[in-house]
Amino acid sequence: MFILPLMSPSNVRLSRIPPQSGTGFELRRGQVLRVIDPQGEQVADLFAFAAGDPTSYLSSGRSLDYAGKLYLSTGDQLYSNDSRVMFSIIADTVGRHDFTLTPCSQRMFEILYRHQGHHPSCHENLCNGLARFGIAPHQIHNTFNIFMNVWFNTEGRMTVDVPRSRPGDYIDLRAEMDLWCGLTACSAEGSNNGTFKPIDYAILEPGA
Amino acid sequence: MFILPLMSPSNVRLSRIPPQSGTGFELRRGQVLRVIDPQGEQVADLFAFAAGDPTSYLSSGRSLDYAGKLYLSTGDQLYSNDSRVMFSIIADTVGRHDFTLTPCSQRMFEILYRHQGHHPSCHENLCNGLARFGIAPHQIHNTFNIFMNVWFNTEGRMTVDVPRSRPGDYIDLRAEMDLWCGLTACSAEGSNNGTFKPIDYAILEPGA
Repeated sequence: MFILPLMSPSNVRLSRIPPQSGTGFELRRGQVLRVIDPQGEQVADLFAFAAGDPTSYLSSGRSLDYAGKLYLSTGDQLYSNDSRVMFSIIADTVGRHDFTLTPCSQRMFEILYRHQGHHPSCHENLCNGLARFGIAPHQIHNTFNIFMNVWFNTEGRMTVDVPRSRPGDYIDLRAEMDLWCGLTACSAEGSNNGTFKPIDYAILEPGA
Repeated sequence: MFILPLMSPSNVRLSRIPPQSGTGFELRRGQVLRVIDPQGEQVADLFAFAAGDPTSYLSSGRSLDYAGKLYLSTGDQLYSNDSRVMFSIIADTVGRHDFTLTPCSQRMFEILYRHQGHHPSCHENLCNGLARFGIAPHQIHNTFNIFMNVWFNTEGRMTVDVPRSRPGDYIDLRAEMDLWCGLTACSAEGSNNGTFKPIDYAILEPGA
């Protein structure tokens, strides 16, 4: 497994996404997005568009088909709907991420958990984070749910288990094109072992 | 299992989708779309939008999350991205359909099979079928791949196996809202046991 050198404060700006919130940012081709779980057992939902062209966006179906597997990790690539490589996973200390589900949403909390009143959600937080790029809510599809531990038994029954990530675990995704990205610290009780924690991320320059 | 009465030519129009092609049509709320595999071992990709509002479309991620399983069948529902029920599966003589992948596409044949030159594909056929509704290619996401036999081992490794459908097998999907639908007879050698066959469908009126 190729692991980038540890970041030093002098050349890498580490950003923190507070619990149950999200952000949006640009990545240039060649930059590496490092997503870190600082406290452990916390999911981060990622979605992306080709910068300047929201008709080209992250596609779970294309990515799983090309990888021929459900769990993407080091050496695998994340594709757009038009079959271009958006990200290469170049390091991953966890190896269990979900790419079958949509981000949690207000309606999800109402339908699955009978929640009443507003509930923070990854969908809302991605909408807010991506609004600066003019992205509308319906343009956000299945997300790459980093550290989310979803598995299926042989009959296909789904279990959402505690994330395997421990404090300091991370995944490095190299941008293979210029990208608009949305990233969250997930808001769903059931995906994060019942507590809400922050997510850290850094944008590493090529060769850093 | 609830099975609708057999269709009679006097009140049901059976339509045939020729091999490696597709179509588009409207469904009104309450109508039942019956998709039939007349010769066996043939996949049909389905995608749908809320009629008149293409920002509301079929969502694999929402549907799998709400069902809590990978393989949807009788009694399960297919949701839109905005968490509305689009279809209820009210009969299914097969019980194995895929909802993790995108429709096969020109680029898929080039990337996975190094195909050269044009290859018919479900994505192209869905585009053509849905063009009458003003749908653009990027608006077609993961499809409900009827009769497609995709399964994952415990490590997540994917296998695309021969469809379990035998001649005459079918699935009935009741429209729970007015819908624009695209439907194909799948063009991928690897998904249909190496041969291309037609798909039949009928639109049954409520209570027919």
